[in-house]
Amino acid sequence: MAAVARAGLRRASRKDIAVIYSQKECNAAAAFTTNRLRAACIEVTEKHLRASGGRLNCIVVNSGNANALTGKEGIRNAERMCAEAARLLGIRREMVAVASTGIIGVQLPIEKVLKGLRDAIPRLSDSTIAGTQAAEAIMTTDRVRKECAIETELHDGRKIKLGGMTKGSGMIAPRMRGLHATTLTFITTDAPVQRTYLQHCLDMCVEDTFNLISIDGDMSTNDCIILAANGAALGPTIRKDTEFEEALHAMLASLAKKVAMDGEGETKLIVVEVRNAKSNEDARNAALSVVNSNLVKCAIFGSDPNIGRIAAALGASGCSVNFSCVDISLCGEKVVSGGIVEMDRQKVVKKMRAREILIEVDLHAGKYSATAMGSDLSYDYIRINSAYST
Amino acid sequence: MAAVARAGLRRASRKDIAVIYSQKECNAAAAFTTNRLRAACIEVTEKHLRASGGRLNCIVVNSGNANALTGKEGIRNAERMCAEAARLLGIRREMVAVASTGIIGVQLPIEKVLKGLRDAIPRLSDSTIAGTQAAEAIMTTDRVRKECAIETELHDGRKIKLGGMTKGSGMIAPRMRGLHATTLTFITTDAPVQRTYLQHCLDMCVEDTFNLISIDGDMSTNDCIILAANGAALGPTIRKDTEFEEALHAMLASLAKKVAMDGEGETKLIVVEVRNAKSNEDARNAALSVVNSNLVKCAIFGSDPNIGRIAAALGASGCSVNFSCVDISLCGEKVVSGGIVEMDRQKVVKKMRAREILIEVDLHAGKYSATAMGSDLSYDYIRINSAYST
Repeated sequence: MAAVARAGLRRASRKDIAVIYSQKECNAAAAFTTNRLRAACIEVTEKHLRASGGRLNCIVVNSGNANALTGKEGIRNAERMCAEAARLLGIRREMVAVASTGIIGVQLPIEKVLKGLRDAIPRLSDSTIAGTQAAEAIMTTDRVRKECAIETELHDGRKIKLGGMTKGSGMIAPRMRGLHATTLTFITTDAPVQRTYLQHCLDMCVEDTFNLISIDGDMSTNDCIILAANGAALGPTIRKDTEFEEALHAMLASLAKKVAMDGEGETKLIVVEVRNAKSNEDARNAALSVVNSNLVKCAIFGSDPNIGRIAAALGASGCSVNFSCVDISLCGEKVVSGGIVEMDRQKVVKKMRAREILIEVDLHAGKYSATAMGSDLSYDYIRINSAYST
Repeated sequence: MAAVARAGLRRASRKDIAVIYSQKECNAAAAFTTNRLRAACIEVTEKHLRASGGRLNCIVVNSGNANALTGKEGIRNAERMCAEAARLLGIRREMVAVASTGIIGVQLPIEKVLKGLRDAIPRLSDSTIAGTQAAEAIMTTDRVRKECAIETELHDGRKIKLGGMTKGSGMIAPRMRGLHATTLTFITTDAPVQRTYLQHCLDMCVEDTFNLISIDGDMSTNDCIILAANGAALGPTIRKDTEFEEALHAMLASLAKKVAMDGEGETKLIVVEVRNAKSNEDARNAALSVVNSNLVKCAIFGSDPNIGRIAAALGASGCSVNFSCVDISLCGEKVVSGGIVEMDRQKVVKKMRAREILIEVDLHAGKYSATAMGSDLSYDYIRINSAYST
């Protein structure tokens, strides 16, 4: 169930409080930012999940204020959000998780937030509209809301559902234990999944989805993914199920791509596929290095086939690479094959005007692969970020 | 001695060949990019310095083409540049170093380059004008030429001179063994310095000058610093001299600052001083993380005191930090002191309109310090870099 409210944290007209609630207790898994500056909500959510033995009923979220760099008062405010929701729902406060996103370094207007919770909770509803409104309420500079729903059959034939929402546009550079990004992601499922296995599945899926997207290389203080399984689908507890893993992976991949496609000022999605790297780490570092390069991002924004920048970013990643046997394709056109290939420049420029730019790199050095995604760097990124807090 | 020529590598009207020459053999020290994709000129210069026992007479430089990602033909072309200069000067080709800067992935128009060398070398001159012209010829997107001259007295009273030039504007993120940046830097001195000690001095000084500047976080394939000491000041060989070390450090600090101040699209210089870090690495990582953050750069471009972004970048650096006892000042105003400090926002905004923005961070965690420098991120950076190779 979900509900939203307008607490007036940033703009009066905007929904900025979301509540996600399951009457049935959920097993929960979570992944948090590895930034050394962790928002108060992260500290409190982690504490609650520990105290509840990894279970929860409710997630309360606010946008407009990150409750980060807010010291002890910030912790108290995050606790008060949980306590108020718990009181209204008649549950223990440890069963409530809290997430925030917005400006860093400003105390939460806590009375407004609590009033928002009191407005929202009586209106909790199972409707699709409520879920969609929640996905809107967690947005900040996002241009579009980001949801995903998947239905699948488990190995034993049981039908289960997964529902997910995410937000994120700037300060995106994944590393949740390790991810980094101000991305908040909430996934619910009715599958009855054993807790340790749930966490294992989340960790595994985050690695090559959210941890391989990057908008601006800036790691947030507030990133979190919470995955809650309430078991409403009934039947035996799942301790291992490939179908569940695949569905969860598809969910995270879909949500991560939506974030990468909605980068601040984004005009094009950049997808970097690195193949045949010597190690998994090499593949990941190489893909992220290319997708993070400001110079590559600018060239793609300008539809400029500046191959040298792609190669330089690969070299800068520190991956094991012999440039006399590297292949690089840009938008399906071979541009490097152990050296620069003569290309039909006009043809490549034309292909680069597409909405999605694919860079394929074959290192011919091993058997590991990784795909990173991000957005280009445009005038709008500067416009959005040079006047954010003012 | 120096000389320049117009070889027409990019624009016909531009000086794009520089030759720096000493009739007396020099002891030489060098630092090169740690990018895995190293330009052909780097490979050849390193080979020549090895073959000559770390000595040289001449440095030939071209701008407009990086001679990187150019395979065996690139190596042959870099060799031909050295061979032609050696022939014209009547020296061994191992006594010639070569450096290039410009577009990556395009073969050098070698005949034009060789003709440029034949034009330049007969005009080698000791004049200040010739040195200044050389500093102009190595420029690419630089707005201003970058030179520095220092005269000092050694410990024993001998007077010596150092002359330096550098270039660099984009693809600047220092790590030369490590440095990274397309920055070419050439320093000459008449001091008679022992070779191993010369290299030791260079390595030491590069660490907290060029290796702590960053324009865009993109590591170049062509970075190099060459330091040549011809001993014309006579007297006993210097094996250790604090005065020399200080002069060299001042030279590199001055040149590095000039590069940081001329970042592509730069409107403001950002200086980040980190004090009392737990380790030297922590201090360096923290300072570079703040100066490299796109979000911090954009906020500074917009004169927006977005303190949260500075704190988030600190936290993202992975340095040992307890935010309940961190102090941060922005333009001399305390903005964080174990939490956000109420600031006179209008006053800070006004101070942020200055040309140089100082961010001071006290981690209260140890005794190590580092100062990093970089430039802000503006619309012009996007304009310059979205249409570079076209």
